[in-house]
Amino acid sequence: MTGSGTFADLEGARLGAGAPLGEILEALRYDAQGLIPAIAQDADSGVVLMLAWMNRAAIERTLAEGYACYWSRSRAAFWRKGETSGHLQALVELRFDCDGDAVLLRVRQSGPACHTNRPSCFYLLARDGSVRITADPV
Amino acid sequence: MTGSGTFADLEGARLGAGAPLGEILEALRYDAQGLIPAIAQDADSGVVLMLAWMNRAAIERTLAEGYACYWSRSRAAFWRKGETSGHLQALVELRFDCDGDAVLLRVRQSGPACHTNRPSCFYLLARDGSVRITADPV
Repeated sequence: MTGSGTFADLEGARLGAGAPLGEILEALRYDAQGLIPAIAQDADSGVVLMLAWMNRAAIERTLAEGYACYWSRSRAAFWRKGETSGHLQALVELRFDCDGDAVLLRVRQSGPACHTNRPSCFYLLARDGSVRITADPV
Repeated sequence: MTGSGTFADLEGARLGAGAPLGEILEALRYDAQGLIPAIAQDADSGVVLMLAWMNRAAIERTLAEGYACYWSRSRAAFWRKGETSGHLQALVELRFDCDGDAVLLRVRQSGPACHTNRPSCFYLLARDGSVRITADPV
């Protein structure tokens, strides 16, 4: 796995230690399509809003522009979240995980995060052999 | 995409409506390896702990046993989180997202979630062209 050395090195390092962003972006473990899963979380409430995908350029755009920009697998195009709906995600912070195969965006969400107009995409709860809707569109 | 009808139908349904778990598990959009990304979140603090992968059987085991069980891509085997470390994740609830391509586990985490002994795997913060460690091992 390309560049896993960077993340392995950081595992043993201490608070405040780090690496240049470019080195990290190079070392991330993208899948065969060049993508990495990205979790969006409301920075204030802690609610997990959605999971989407990013390539290196989408991460760079998100950091440069201060708004979440994903890669749409269905459209094979950049997807500035909220570009058409107005439901933008202002970036509060962007994090990577220990082995460089996931991204966490902490955001301030304008309006509902879900395309169904529910606050979060995770509105389907499994319990006792059924899956039930836990939120209505706002 | 197999079974997307189920999720499309639920988009328009209301609070409390639902479907049998088996139908949902059948309709989930697993990748070519039969896997779906799973986010683990601390149910009390809201901290996002990690991202791992599940297949259908891992979801079923997690629901049946009440502890998070993933599929380890590197070992190609079930991975009962904490089986060797003791850092189990007791399941509080399991959710699916709107289009059936992600799982959210809300858990009570015993000990640190990360194999580095940090509370969360997402301890690498991007800021101002660098990536810095924000937590030491506990």
